[in-house]
Amino acid sequence: MKIGILGAGQLGQMLALAGYPLGNRFSFLDTSANASADIGCLFTHSEADSALADFLAQVDCVTYEFEHLPLPLVKSIAEQKPLFPSVKALQVCQNREAEKALFDQLSIPVADYRLVNSADELAQACQELMTAGAQAVVAKSITEGYDGKGQAVLRRPDEAASAWQRIGHSRLIVEAFVDFVREVSIIAVRGRSGDVVFYPVAENHHVEGILRYSLAPVPNFSQEAQVQAEAYIHALLDELEYVGVLTLELFQQADGCLLANEMAPRVHNSGHWTQNGSMTSQFENHLRAVQGLPLGSTHAKALTCMINIIGKNGDYEDILKLEDTHLHLYGKSERAGRKLGHINLVAGNIDDLKRKVEQVAQLLPDAPAPEFSF
Amino acid sequence: MKIGILGAGQLGQMLALAGYPLGNRFSFLDTSANASADIGCLFTHSEADSALADFLAQVDCVTYEFEHLPLPLVKSIAEQKPLFPSVKALQVCQNREAEKALFDQLSIPVADYRLVNSADELAQACQELMTAGAQAVVAKSITEGYDGKGQAVLRRPDEAASAWQRIGHSRLIVEAFVDFVREVSIIAVRGRSGDVVFYPVAENHHVEGILRYSLAPVPNFSQEAQVQAEAYIHALLDELEYVGVLTLELFQQADGCLLANEMAPRVHNSGHWTQNGSMTSQFENHLRAVQGLPLGSTHAKALTCMINIIGKNGDYEDILKLEDTHLHLYGKSERAGRKLGHINLVAGNIDDLKRKVEQVAQLLPDAPAPEFSF
Repeated sequence: MKIGILGAGQLGQMLALAGYPLGNRFSFLDTSANASADIGCLFTHSEADSALADFLAQVDCVTYEFEHLPLPLVKSIAEQKPLFPSVKALQVCQNREAEKALFDQLSIPVADYRLVNSADELAQACQELMTAGAQAVVAKSITEGYDGKGQAVLRRPDEAASAWQRIGHSRLIVEAFVDFVREVSIIAVRGRSGDVVFYPVAENHHVEGILRYSLAPVPNFSQEAQVQAEAYIHALLDELEYVGVLTLELFQQADGCLLANEMAPRVHNSGHWTQNGSMTSQFENHLRAVQGLPLGSTHAKALTCMINIIGKNGDYEDILKLEDTHLHLYGKSERAGRKLGHINLVAGNIDDLKRKVEQVAQLLPDAPAPEFSF
Repeated sequence: MKIGILGAGQLGQMLALAGYPLGNRFSFLDTSANASADIGCLFTHSEADSALADFLAQVDCVTYEFEHLPLPLVKSIAEQKPLFPSVKALQVCQNREAEKALFDQLSIPVADYRLVNSADELAQACQELMTAGAQAVVAKSITEGYDGKGQAVLRRPDEAASAWQRIGHSRLIVEAFVDFVREVSIIAVRGRSGDVVFYPVAENHHVEGILRYSLAPVPNFSQEAQVQAEAYIHALLDELEYVGVLTLELFQQADGCLLANEMAPRVHNSGHWTQNGSMTSQFENHLRAVQGLPLGSTHAKALTCMINIIGKNGDYEDILKLEDTHLHLYGKSERAGRKLGHINLVAGNIDDLKRKVEQVAQLLPDAPAPEFSF
């Protein structure tokens, strides 16, 4: 089967690497100049209708590696070729207001929030949420935000004017800052026939809004919490009649309860550990789903920690000397804050894994010291 | 690093799939029309000097996925770019006479053999070897044979004339047919600095000269035999100042002793199990070796059986329903005797693995029933 991918970054490239052995071939449609995926037919979108027609003529179905896509384009594609995940899923995930409404509708708990249309309303929302107990609030643009962009943390209502200006959007969502024990994510896959599989929850560590470490399975994550996370994402998958990989980011509070943060309708950075730690990677399972194949086992073969390589390359010669250490580079040049690749470290027990993570962190420039909740 | 590969079949494609995550990019040089590797820059050799120059201008070093290459071409390449494994290794592996001489020189035991230049000499060699106890002999062309091509089994000296004519070469090697318990292979990797790692020996099952099953680690293969196989291949690697993956095929006799059969200076079909069964695949380790990176662990994570898909595609939907089952297709159309792909089955114990192998064999058209020595 020939699969078209909207976006040609590292996620598209890793999908293609997982799909070649399944007999798939790929075409990419990308408007950006710095595409990463240079496997098979790379197709740069020229904004011309003929370019889109050429792309569609090459493929049997279409998926995407990036959710911030123009909706009219995606709707037009869905009228011509099977598109997974659906336009509806994309619409919800592009819009924090629609996403929160869906969480509410499905009784998936979230942090207290308000919607605001001006700096004054932002100040008032901040006041209300802090009066109700929040130590701070996070204001986010309704659309287009990722990796911490389009966001601001407010510790006092009088910071509203400058935050409003900095974010520069006409409508924001304001969330009570959650006092969490850890950030986790669950990745699930739904096939064309409605079958669903779940990966074990991963614990994620962000620095300045960018993911640095993901570790799975989480040693002290209770079975109850895993089941709860699965129930939440299962409800989302079924409601959206979803096909493919969906990622749900959650906060775990001190009492063990989970609050939904946001979701991504695609393979996700916090699931890269599955390439070396699970029987079937998130990339292979996404492709199995979109082409109607049976889903692969999501069983974790070992404890795995994924470390992102941000901005600068490390000493890969020394890193690769460590046993069961797997390098995944994206073919990008160095630039501050840019994801250049990741490293998956696999170990038989958590102490060995933590030791290896510390060793690797020291061999990566500017890598923050790893901190885990266990 | 940009790596040039001579040959663009499935081995080249799997090298490229393993190399993308290491940051490598690939160019292929191939004279055949039905190349499999369509990743990155596929370059079809037009026999023109300019085509070779273009290929060499694109790459930092060169390796090969196929040993039946014209020596003058390879020598010319080695004068212009680093080439691994060396021309010397290629020369020996292209020629059964040179190969046997090297085994003899390094005291690696082989089946009794003779070199012959005519049908009469073939009849006489057959007579001698059978008088010395052989039940049959195998006559093989000195050059160009693979997958059982250019070979004939003789059970009586008077079959020499027809065998000579059928093989159609001017010089043959005639080997006493070995009464073996099993066929095995050992795969080893030597880095640029002379460091060597060994994979566990695999047991191989051929039908009509074509590999059908490889299983590793072999449950009842003794540690002594593993060490012996490692010593043989280590001697070969050092003598040839080899860089990359080398494969040595061996017969194990009833007394446990190993006799060398032949070697291949490349990644090998009997090492495909390492993609899902080992910490580092043979493909990644070959690439690590040729670019001077530390070699990865060859530790087997689980029992793995590789099944070749020959001639016709199977029912992949049903096959992929089995847990920890990994499909590797080469993108080729169906043709009798053609290797279309392989399936790696991973299991925690040998009984589970045998059961899964039987299930998969039933879902592949014309697959021979699996038979193992344990």
